[in-house]
Amino acid sequence: MTPQEATAPRTGSTRTAEAVARRAAGHSLEGPFYTDPDFYDLDLAAVFARQWIFVAVDAELPEPGDRTTVDIGPYALLLVRDDQGDLRAFHNVCRHRGARLLDGDGGTTGNLVCGYHKWTYRTDGSLLHAPSQPDDFDRGRYGLKPVHVRSVGGLVFVCLAAQPPADFPEVAARIEPYLLPHGLRRAKVAARTDLVEEGNWKLVMENNRECYHCDGHPELLRTFFPTYGYTEENLPARLRPAHERRLRAEAEVHATYERLGLPYELIEELDDRVTGFRIQRAALDLAGESFTPDGRAACRRLLGDLPTPRLGHLALHLQPNSWFHVLGDHAITFSVLPLAPDRTLLRTTWLVHPQAEEGVDYDPGTLMSVWTATNAQDARLVARAQRGVAGPAYEPGPYAPSEYQVEAFCSWYIARLRSELHREEPHP
Amino acid sequence: MTPQEATAPRTGSTRTAEAVARRAAGHSLEGPFYTDPDFYDLDLAAVFARQWIFVAVDAELPEPGDRTTVDIGPYALLLVRDDQGDLRAFHNVCRHRGARLLDGDGGTTGNLVCGYHKWTYRTDGSLLHAPSQPDDFDRGRYGLKPVHVRSVGGLVFVCLAAQPPADFPEVAARIEPYLLPHGLRRAKVAARTDLVEEGNWKLVMENNRECYHCDGHPELLRTFFPTYGYTEENLPARLRPAHERRLRAEAEVHATYERLGLPYELIEELDDRVTGFRIQRAALDLAGESFTPDGRAACRRLLGDLPTPRLGHLALHLQPNSWFHVLGDHAITFSVLPLAPDRTLLRTTWLVHPQAEEGVDYDPGTLMSVWTATNAQDARLVARAQRGVAGPAYEPGPYAPSEYQVEAFCSWYIARLRSELHREEPHP
Amino acid sequence: MTPQEATAPRTGSTRTAEAVARRAAGHSLEGPFYTDPDFYDLDLAAVFARQWIFVAVDAELPEPGDRTTVDIGPYALLLVRDDQGDLRAFHNVCRHRGARLLDGDGGTTGNLVCGYHKWTYRTDGSLLHAPSQPDDFDRGRYGLKPVHVRSVGGLVFVCLAAQPPADFPEVAARIEPYLLPHGLRRAKVAARTDLVEEGNWKLVMENNRECYHCDGHPELLRTFFPTYGYTEENLPARLRPAHERRLRAEAEVHATYERLGLPYELIEELDDRVTGFRIQRAALDLAGESFTPDGRAACRRLLGDLPTPRLGHLALHLQPNSWFHVLGDHAITFSVLPLAPDRTLLRTTWLVHPQAEEGVDYDPGTLMSVWTATNAQDARLVARAQRGVAGPAYEPGPYAPSEYQVEAFCSWYIARLRSELHREEPHP
Repeated sequence: MTPQEATAPRTGSTRTAEAVARRAAGHSLEGPFYTDPDFYDLDLAAVFARQWIFVAVDAELPEPGDRTTVDIGPYALLLVRDDQGDLRAFHNVCRHRGARLLDGDGGTTGNLVCGYHKWTYRTDGSLLHAPSQPDDFDRGRYGLKPVHVRSVGGLVFVCLAAQPPADFPEVAARIEPYLLPHGLRRAKVAARTDLVEEGNWKLVMENNRECYHCDGHPELLRTFFPTYGYTEENLPARLRPAHERRLRAEAEVHATYERLGLPYELIEELDDRVTGFRIQRAALDLAGESFTPDGRAACRRLLGDLPTPRLGHLALHLQPNSWFHVLGDHAITFSVLPLAPDRTLLRTTWLVHPQAEEGVDYDPGTLMSVWTATNAQDARLVARAQRGVAGPAYEPGPYAPSEYQVEAFCSWYIARLRSELHREEPHP
Repeated sequence: MTPQEATAPRTGSTRTAEAVARRAAGHSLEGPFYTDPDFYDLDLAAVFARQWIFVAVDAELPEPGDRTTVDIGPYALLLVRDDQGDLRAFHNVCRHRGARLLDGDGGTTGNLVCGYHKWTYRTDGSLLHAPSQPDDFDRGRYGLKPVHVRSVGGLVFVCLAAQPPADFPEVAARIEPYLLPHGLRRAKVAARTDLVEEGNWKLVMENNRECYHCDGHPELLRTFFPTYGYTEENLPARLRPAHERRLRAEAEVHATYERLGLPYELIEELDDRVTGFRIQRAALDLAGESFTPDGRAACRRLLGDLPTPRLGHLALHLQPNSWFHVLGDHAITFSVLPLAPDRTLLRTTWLVHPQAEEGVDYDPGTLMSVWTATNAQDARLVARAQRGVAGPAYEPGPYAPSEYQVEAFCSWYIARLRSELHREEPHP
Repeated sequence: MTPQEATAPRTGSTRTAEAVARRAAGHSLEGPFYTDPDFYDLDLAAVFARQWIFVAVDAELPEPGDRTTVDIGPYALLLVRDDQGDLRAFHNVCRHRGARLLDGDGGTTGNLVCGYHKWTYRTDGSLLHAPSQPDDFDRGRYGLKPVHVRSVGGLVFVCLAAQPPADFPEVAARIEPYLLPHGLRRAKVAARTDLVEEGNWKLVMENNRECYHCDGHPELLRTFFPTYGYTEENLPARLRPAHERRLRAEAEVHATYERLGLPYELIEELDDRVTGFRIQRAALDLAGESFTPDGRAACRRLLGDLPTPRLGHLALHLQPNSWFHVLGDHAITFSVLPLAPDRTLLRTTWLVHPQAEEGVDYDPGTLMSVWTATNAQDARLVARAQRGVAGPAYEPGPYAPSEYQVEAFCSWYIARLRSELHREEPHP
């Protein structure tokens, strides 16, 4: 080591690269991944500014002119359905003096008008009018900055990168057949909640990737079979009846899937591609229809007008930031959006049949009860994990076999960081 | 580039110097000027610790022994009127163990007594008594640290620098004749509000330097002529009557100014001197007397005992941190004080005739209504601008011709930073 | 200076080392010691991760299985009384994925069960059960990480260092005889309060090391003799009666101490050893029994079943973070725990005879009134000091002779930093 090296302070990027190189497979990540602002910035660059990010559902913007806003870390975005009915996404920043253009869901009036000095943009992002400018002002230079956007079976993704991941079209083509029969594109938003969790976004994702902790979810467990994590070989005798019940339920839903032409093959490509994902249909316990105390449908109208509510659930995990449950009677989408190293937004949206009437076909309280409780329980666990990994005494511990999807998430994540750190060109 | 340069991290001072050098005239400033702690520190050093800063009015401290406190960024100051009736300013820090000496407005008892261990200072800052010290204790070494202070026509300025800007006496001499006829030195404080805006101090100033956004100020617009930003050439037909009305009102106030000997020449030296400023008298619409819904005076006693309230308004802009409106019946002062990169205090003070009686001569609600509403509207715009420029997608946009005073403010500001960065001697 | 040195930014550790080297004896510390995150980190490393830290009383965990939690800066700890009745301390972090193991006082159920995935530890810290692990999982590798813990006369201390300070056993042996007669080990916790003070931990300690500011404590002063800070030579005439009263009271308590065999010699070794401390018994004014408005006992049952409440108070100061008052009828412990550079937790615990009954033998409001008021007054002074020393105008001022214990605290503290900075081996 030369004297010069000895005195050079270790920069944030050196520290992150060393920690990435040091990652031990099969173990949880080191503390700074969850707490250090340099790692947070790297996550934004390597993951949230590279990948397709699930941010909304088509059903939030059904008509031309409809709009909404969403923030991905420091990136403020707006979504609008243009006059042709196509979705558009833009940076939510006025090209004049940088004011945030729209706040919240922003109504449905035709053009996009900045509330500061009335710069007015068309729904295609072009600048229509800027008051008081000189005659030679070139409006063509000051359109809103576009962001890639696309819908997959009614689920809306944006990508901040100039070049979105090359494998997303293939992933979309493989999951869309699972989604389309449920008619999410024309569904109705029955409810949406925003929950700020006191933990890093990865802890929110990791927590969702296993049911090892599901003892803490009594409401959710009512319709999950209590055989999770066991195989035929190590099944305790007390769970034998539940196991038999599950086998019967699986056989029944498989027959239904075949009859209705619903794809149900498990695909699990979590850590061997850029757009890691997992999709599966599975039976539910009790009535087998929905996440309710008795397992019966919470909405009388069924999604996609399918002929039976007894479909179990379609579970989709999609890296980096989302998961989904599609049931016969409703669907629930989950979007995880980083706010700070130790704060994360979980946006949950409940979708029902477009003609389902609140108070007639469904009671929102019943519809939302299981996942509202589950989200709150998970938020407490995530906060507890964040507080623990933030301390100097924490060191990575071993994952159990039933946490293989957490391990897959972490391996996938580390691969994204490695890819970013080895890029030749600077980030856009 | 040598290896040594390659590994040296770019320091805050390098980044600021590069951004200052890169500033494109006619465009808003880059985002870090509003968000980065290094730029905030530079602003404090180059602007707030160099310039004369408007912090109070004489009317807040009319009698010997009166005192008040004010913070300029991290600098805690106290103002006191000494036994000779002169204003004094000191760092508000006890010379014993550093406790903040006075809190808030601090009453009027003679000496300045620290609430911690009763160290007692005279109003001239000298240490009168320190309990329990040994016999050889030298009180002469522990007087309060003085800060430059001066009043201009009743407006109180402090300067933290060892050498205050050389051009301030000239500026003071030129604006004082405009102010003196209104008798602000002996006025009464009718009200004072502190509003914390969620934006950088420069956004607060920039927002005040244009009326391009005044559509958002319906209360203020009632007495502003609706021809702002137009010239004779581009005046729309619908504004022709208002334009004629304005010409008549201007002619009338000019005649009044001449009759009363009130100077009213526009002086605009915003960006070509260290103490940039602009002063102007202008007619108001409707009754032409005051900022009220019908334009009539809000206080029956007139400032300076002038014979008519129909004086329009005297508008004074003074870099770096203040603006003023002086009307026939009252005056309003605005002091902008940085709290953090993204938080700024706006202190607004309403002054009336010293014998004006609340409830008899004026109703505080009416007096304050227009600027309380306007300040709140501006705070929302500033917050929106701060959120926008803080994002990675923001880039500087072009100013319109009607925003030339914003451009002048930014040019003046950049000149201050350049001057600071080229100083040979370190900051005191 | 070489060009290379000239361009190297001064690192946090260079700045701290320079400030430590520059410390002027007899003067308060420079501002950054109280505000700079680098100094805060150094304090944690040099003081809180090296010394024995007072964190609890035995009486909070009287029975096997009892447990509590405490945080020392970023270190989350848990205390538990094991099955043999011995105290144990561990890092409060699950060895699986790092979740905080216990929250708050955590109940008394036998094993320590993580609320996330039910990893279960014995009270000796060993891992008893980890669900769903493979057959070859080695539980022996995943016990809780232990922390040194010991009780001195009922006061519980932990030490995060691998090698605790060598002089603590001697200090413990010297103070334990003072404490044991009061039976704190078997006392009852009558009340506990947590107060977050808006100041650095050292300002909280310094404030406690002098009564120069006690004018601000009218409740406490009722039973303190008003002769503090005076000697026979400089005693004002007006205090002569109080002085005589104090001499009589001291003579009386000394006789009582002799009769009861209570050690009462003043020991003051504040800055010449690693574990600086001071212990003293002294008479109180008025009834001389307790900190109450009339000086009478606040609890009818006496600590340690001593035959008289008229014992004055035993005052113990122990570096770095505690002080204690033991009276005939109750004892009060004070634990100072850093939360951030400018935030500190003061935990105050009131102890009474184990059989004393609330509402019968003591009224909690009366018991707590003096120190609840005193703590709140001190918190205001500490906040005022923090705000003052955080400003650029603050410079260290001179201590008075009556502040010699503050000076001793600062000298001791600087010695701890010097020792840390000269260590060869890195911090564990």
